[in-house]
Amino acid sequence: MAQESGFPAMVNDRLLRAARGEEVDQVPVWVMRQAGRYLPEFREVRAKHDFFTMCQTPSLSCQVTLQPLNRFPLDAAIIFSDILVIPQALGMEVEMRPGEMSSSPTPRALSLNLSYTYHTRILKPPNMGPVFPSPLRGPEDLSRLAPPGDACTKLQYVFDALTLTRKELKGKATLIGFSGAPWTIMAYMIEGKGSKTMSNAKGWLYKHAEASHRLLKIITEATIHYLVGQVKAGAQVLQVFESHAEHLGPQLFRDFALPYLKQICDQVKEQVKQLGLPDIPMIVFPKGGHYALKDLASLKYEVIGIDWTVDPILARELVGPTKVLQGNLDPCALYGDKKSIDAAVKEMVQKFGRHRYIANLGHGMYPDMDPDHLAAFVQAVQKYSKD
Amino acid sequence: MAQESGFPAMVNDRLLRAARGEEVDQVPVWVMRQAGRYLPEFREVRAKHDFFTMCQTPSLSCQVTLQPLNRFPLDAAIIFSDILVIPQALGMEVEMRPGEMSSSPTPRALSLNLSYTYHTRILKPPNMGPVFPSPLRGPEDLSRLAPPGDACTKLQYVFDALTLTRKELKGKATLIGFSGAPWTIMAYMIEGKGSKTMSNAKGWLYKHAEASHRLLKIITEATIHYLVGQVKAGAQVLQVFESHAEHLGPQLFRDFALPYLKQICDQVKEQVKQLGLPDIPMIVFPKGGHYALKDLASLKYEVIGIDWTVDPILARELVGPTKVLQGNLDPCALYGDKKSIDAAVKEMVQKFGRHRYIANLGHGMYPDMDPDHLAAFVQAVQKYSKD
Repeated sequence: MAQESGFPAMVNDRLLRAARGEEVDQVPVWVMRQAGRYLPEFREVRAKHDFFTMCQTPSLSCQVTLQPLNRFPLDAAIIFSDILVIPQALGMEVEMRPGEMSSSPTPRALSLNLSYTYHTRILKPPNMGPVFPSPLRGPEDLSRLAPPGDACTKLQYVFDALTLTRKELKGKATLIGFSGAPWTIMAYMIEGKGSKTMSNAKGWLYKHAEASHRLLKIITEATIHYLVGQVKAGAQVLQVFESHAEHLGPQLFRDFALPYLKQICDQVKEQVKQLGLPDIPMIVFPKGGHYALKDLASLKYEVIGIDWTVDPILARELVGPTKVLQGNLDPCALYGDKKSIDAAVKEMVQKFGRHRYIANLGHGMYPDMDPDHLAAFVQAVQKYSKD
Repeated sequence: MAQESGFPAMVNDRLLRAARGEEVDQVPVWVMRQAGRYLPEFREVRAKHDFFTMCQTPSLSCQVTLQPLNRFPLDAAIIFSDILVIPQALGMEVEMRPGEMSSSPTPRALSLNLSYTYHTRILKPPNMGPVFPSPLRGPEDLSRLAPPGDACTKLQYVFDALTLTRKELKGKATLIGFSGAPWTIMAYMIEGKGSKTMSNAKGWLYKHAEASHRLLKIITEATIHYLVGQVKAGAQVLQVFESHAEHLGPQLFRDFALPYLKQICDQVKEQVKQLGLPDIPMIVFPKGGHYALKDLASLKYEVIGIDWTVDPILARELVGPTKVLQGNLDPCALYGDKKSIDAAVKEMVQKFGRHRYIANLGHGMYPDMDPDHLAAFVQAVQKYSKD
């Protein structure tokens, strides 16, 4: 394959094959946020560096991307980065702050090192959340944004991290690049931080439909450049996170999400083709987008990720026989003991079936999870999914 | 009807009839959180009194309950109270604090009066959220809870508010009482505040299944007493809010939510019958519980509320022909202009049909909404739903 030149030959292309709908010897497995704070070796790096410094330093990004693969027999590495690098590249300031939208009852302390000293009886690291000190207040603020065509010149560090990681992976796993979907990015840019209702961002959709489309187009254009750049740099699969699908509904999704998700998929595939690179499998993950699965199946994404609220049997009915499904164990199932994880994975694999399926959680790892329980998850997938 | 003795005769029983599945001249309409901070007259009261003081003072609760009915031709009043009075009655401390899980980008200021002075260009009151200073940290904390049978002796103020309001309503609208569903209350008691993931509470379900059931039983028992007390006091319809259904999935819901929702409905109806009172229509509202609609249709709740992510046609397929549906306009649609509200309501009523339907939003009003836009919503329901 043309793209492979300069990179080590693939020793394990299980995920890549499954994403293309090809036969595999066992179900490939990776998990969202597998490079993250639940790993002590990640927290060790994080204690020394700012979150975005880690994103922006290829050697650090590569290091933490590979950490989970050193522990678990995963079939993919997802580059350590953040969906908010796009708003940053468009000229917006983003900070990571503790306690924003935290799931912890006491998110006051900031101690992102190895010793969590809390007054609770539960060992629980503080959650961090992104904050925009100057979110978009109204349509007039769109003039603050940098031209989307230039955005990727500022994201060379992601491309460098991908190239380095692809080499370091030595073909042992598929390298996944990613971006946020336009609505999800727009919602962050307007809310300025996590929100239970996203009512400011949704207010735009109802009050400023034209400006919303303008903003979504800017994000879409920057995202297409960005994802094509990731492929050129060595990404072998791309995942687009529509993390805020839950706030839309069938009609808002059709109006403000689906057209941009379509453009991204179509354009990325077209441009990758024009570059003479092999077709790249793409994953779309609509968190909370149960209502959108049928619509999404009409796009060219090979893989559709589902969260834990959607039964796998229903998901298969909705997306049809040819799409690959990815998911969907409730992340919180990892709080259970290893026996219960094993049983839950068994049921999950039975429901999804062994083909056209990539095993994953229905959302990302949480910081207070036990790495050994993720090991039990991965092990169970492999146990129950061999042909 | 026996229950009606001592209360004014019903002048408008449209909602009551619709909830029982009877024919109505037009679709009844009310909206969740219709008594709330979007109303200047509510904020005027709220500026002078603490949130829970308002709940605990029957004259104040009655006053704000009736406020929206003085403005809009609504078919129901829902008593001003809070689902967290149950944890309070079980002995837990609950405070209202600004900025918890806020949807506002700048929730720092606390100025719950009529003049919102913000440094943003958007007029936006700060959101308030409940906080438990001492949430349940582990199963051993269950011993802190008061016996559920005694809980309702502390909630006499709700019963008094209902009786007063029922009289003041003069039969012009149906009076709705309510409670939280057990899982929803449990999640608050453990998280201690709003949470994006509810990972602490969900952790209990996976780690402490037995203790979770013990806690859910305690809440269920208190809730049954509480709801029967509400009927005795004058409530004509009861709504059970499963506001945190979105965090469960099909299996967790079947294990930890459905059995308790069933018990509540069965037991309340049974005890109401034993008291010689007429059968009371009950509504269950599983926010984010798209996956649970079929299961819920097997219970005796006459009405199932749906949020805006579920298409009304699909909801009808899932619950069958005899249940009454309630919902489901995206609350944020009220940010649009009156013309767009009218169009959205027209489509909604067409999809639900005029019978076995109660018009509502898919969630509650937000504090920054324009009362005139709610007026447009109510007006449009009446315009498009007359026989």
